[in-house]
Amino acid sequence: MADTKRITGKKNPLFQREDLDLGNYLSPLPVTLVSSQRPGDRPNALAIAWNGIVNSKPPMVSISLQRSRYSYETIKETGEFVINLPDLALAKAVDYCGVKSYRDTDKFKDLGLHIESMPGLNQAPAILEAPLSLGCQVRDIHALGSHDLFLAEIVSIRARSALIDKQKALRLEDAGLISYVHGEYFSLGSWLGFFGWSIAKDEVLQRRRKAARAREKKRKYGKLS
Amino acid sequence: MADTKRITGKKNPLFQREDLDLGNYLSPLPVTLVSSQRPGDRPNALAIAWNGIVNSKPPMVSISLQRSRYSYETIKETGEFVINLPDLALAKAVDYCGVKSYRDTDKFKDLGLHIESMPGLNQAPAILEAPLSLGCQVRDIHALGSHDLFLAEIVSIRARSALIDKQKALRLEDAGLISYVHGEYFSLGSWLGFFGWSIAKDEVLQRRRKAARAREKKRKYGKLS
Repeated sequence: MADTKRITGKKNPLFQREDLDLGNYLSPLPVTLVSSQRPGDRPNALAIAWNGIVNSKPPMVSISLQRSRYSYETIKETGEFVINLPDLALAKAVDYCGVKSYRDTDKFKDLGLHIESMPGLNQAPAILEAPLSLGCQVRDIHALGSHDLFLAEIVSIRARSALIDKQKALRLEDAGLISYVHGEYFSLGSWLGFFGWSIAKDEVLQRRRKAARAREKKRKYGKLS
Repeated sequence: MADTKRITGKKNPLFQREDLDLGNYLSPLPVTLVSSQRPGDRPNALAIAWNGIVNSKPPMVSISLQRSRYSYETIKETGEFVINLPDLALAKAVDYCGVKSYRDTDKFKDLGLHIESMPGLNQAPAILEAPLSLGCQVRDIHALGSHDLFLAEIVSIRARSALIDKQKALRLEDAGLISYVHGEYFSLGSWLGFFGWSIAKDEVLQRRRKAARAREKKRKYGKLS
């Protein structure tokens, strides 16, 4: 045990806790459409929530894949994939791409999705309907047990023009992003604050909150139909 | 280029896209409080959004840390940390733990946070106020550039009792989780579906949607104050 004094919790129902069986509860996760393509194959897309940012310089992400997935060999062989962030309109497509396999059907045809080339990549296509696509080149693969961890560098980014403001900043919060919480999908909720808001002046926080609420009202793509 | 035929996108404003400068836009990310403690030190907590699930058997997660952070040496030396998922009540604390350093202040004292021991760990404490804590043992560290990637096995889980239902299932979606979208914090939004909903019978989807909406209304901890 740590040799500093343990602080005792108050008698508060929020503080009553119990042990759970092991599982992977980290949430909410970014659930994404990972597209890839092997020469001679049709394009493929897999739903992946087991992903994350791992480095900033250079920008790198990770995805974890089971060896049994069709995308596994494709990504290993081509060394490329595209992470496409879905919006609400794509939520059902994401689930479909997680449930169905390339081996059984043409997901792009079934869902009416379109592809486009991704700068810097030779094989993996981007999904045109996604608000944001990150072109990734695999740098390393680590076998961890049930999954292999693919570490990849982001080499190109393509975003929906309507999400880029006059200052050329990406308003990703207006895209209608979705997330994954232990088997269930959710929309993005309300704006809570910005990095640094806990020590910001109250007037700054009020101004930014007002602007965020105004943007939430105007939002085109972030609403449930 | 891939040698299969590229499908051309329709003339739809949603399909107008442009290239962006490189950056790390994967979103929404789970923003967590990572707690650790070195013998002789006070407990410490760092806000980390650069994390993810990397394996299921055994359950493993990753976090990426800059070497300059105080937590970096602590976690490297002790080989332990706890990922605490915050709720809305902890949103400001999360930001504070991301902005402030152990070197300058006692974050636990400033925020009135309490700690408890975490089963299976010798050093790193859990944060009692968090709805869920994942006890992690470091298995591997990879230097990637600006950040080091820590791969860790989850060895224990502790949850707020109020989030465990009569069937002993964790209702994590009721916790009031928060996420991080490129510098801004958001609450969890509305329920969209469950894994497999895209191919489920309509009556199943309607029943589950109705139950989810009823839970959203009853929710105690998931609402903005």
